[in-house]
Amino acid sequence: MPRFAFKIEYDGRPFAGWQRQKGQISVQQAFEEALGKIDMGVPRATAAGRTDSGVHAVGQVAHCDLQKEWEPFRLAEALNAHLRPRRVAVLQATRVANDFNARMSATGRRYVFRLVSRRAPLTYQKGLAWQIPYPLAADPMRIAAKHFLGRHDFTTFRSAHCQADSPVKTLDELEIDELLLSDGIEFRFIAKARSFMHRQIRSMVGSLERVGAGAWAPDDILEALKARDRQACGPVAPPDGLYFDRAFYDPDPFERPGAQI
Amino acid sequence: MPRFAFKIEYDGRPFAGWQRQKGQISVQQAFEEALGKIDMGVPRATAAGRTDSGVHAVGQVAHCDLQKEWEPFRLAEALNAHLRPRRVAVLQATRVANDFNARMSATGRRYVFRLVSRRAPLTYQKGLAWQIPYPLAADPMRIAAKHFLGRHDFTTFRSAHCQADSPVKTLDELEIDELLLSDGIEFRFIAKARSFMHRQIRSMVGSLERVGAGAWAPDDILEALKARDRQACGPVAPPDGLYFDRAFYDPDPFERPGAQI
Repeated sequence: MPRFAFKIEYDGRPFAGWQRQKGQISVQQAFEEALGKIDMGVPRATAAGRTDSGVHAVGQVAHCDLQKEWEPFRLAEALNAHLRPRRVAVLQATRVANDFNARMSATGRRYVFRLVSRRAPLTYQKGLAWQIPYPLAADPMRIAAKHFLGRHDFTTFRSAHCQADSPVKTLDELEIDELLLSDGIEFRFIAKARSFMHRQIRSMVGSLERVGAGAWAPDDILEALKARDRQACGPVAPPDGLYFDRAFYDPDPFERPGAQI
Repeated sequence: MPRFAFKIEYDGRPFAGWQRQKGQISVQQAFEEALGKIDMGVPRATAAGRTDSGVHAVGQVAHCDLQKEWEPFRLAEALNAHLRPRRVAVLQATRVANDFNARMSATGRRYVFRLVSRRAPLTYQKGLAWQIPYPLAADPMRIAAKHFLGRHDFTTFRSAHCQADSPVKTLDELEIDELLLSDGIEFRFIAKARSFMHRQIRSMVGSLERVGAGAWAPDDILEALKARDRQACGPVAPPDGLYFDRAFYDPDPFERPGAQI
């Protein structure tokens, strides 16, 4: 059976996350239902990252085996026709080898977290960023963020329900960009690692926010890491601001000429 | 009675536009209801621009007379507490003289129209931009946009229901910015004039889109203008992409120190 990979964007708000859940609508279910409408089999999709309820994606990757050969552009178009009412869209489809696995083959994952610091509540961006009603200091957050870089036991910064075998992970990148808004500042936290644990980014961002607010010193992040104790974590940031940005592969199946939609 | 001016942001999607409508929820109604909860009178608000159904605002301005003196920051906070579930937010409140009128005193109005050119439908930005599934050429659109600048009879580019006395208006600015997206291009049309007529910007953008798509030559815009005939207009762009960006006043009541929230 031919295997395809898909670059997928979605609005996390109406969904219970990527993974199928009993009694709730997941992105996986919406996507597999669209696949089922164009394919004779019972297509099952595997994603690079299992995003939580309310978490968005601008570059989620999933793979799936289909019964027939499709021209990738037509496949993306056919899926989007079925997905249109669901706030899920295929940005690109491509044919991949049968040993390509969206989850296992990924050499890295990147997330972006949007935090808007302004007094007024969000309106048209409600659910698309985390709004906090006071200013944050960028420099202390950047100093604190450096403590997360490299290989650490991230026990403090993962959910108590995290099922990863080991709490030891390597964080490759944690940048904080600032965008000046007419009425505040948007902070974009860009985090890259081979893989993340459950709630890891929201736990890190929630703790960094405490540093930006002046409630924590930058070195308190180091202490919290060293504690290896979930109780030492700051408040967990809401899912609203989190976007699965990109999965990395070597070679990148989406960079092949002609596969672009 | 003390008069206040408000800078207001809203998500146009749930509303029938700014102005009160029988049997539909308008931004004006939501805003006046919030004012009514903190003021003993029956506050009536006047806005700089009467946005249509589905049109957003990031800098709408309205004024209102209240029964008592308020500290502007507290006033904005109190209103936002009541507005929070409605996707309307007060960005700033300020005390103004009784001859300030959000509509009559405005020396100019600026709108931004967001058009996303990419194959896939929008997901988390659905309703926040106009998505078209093919590429647009920027240069022809920019050449065509110049025809709109200056003083013209805009009969072709206003709604048949427009109630303005005269179809002659002066357009001061029509810039087209390009933002590169990972999967397409976002065009931002920035239009400024003393005032606009009903559907004028959506009519101009819808016609410029035809130029970008290659269906119209840039000079067809000039022909359409000269025709002074609504039938000569291109398709009217949907409200999704339109944002009331700013109202201009001289002096600007929101630039007074201490008025900022």
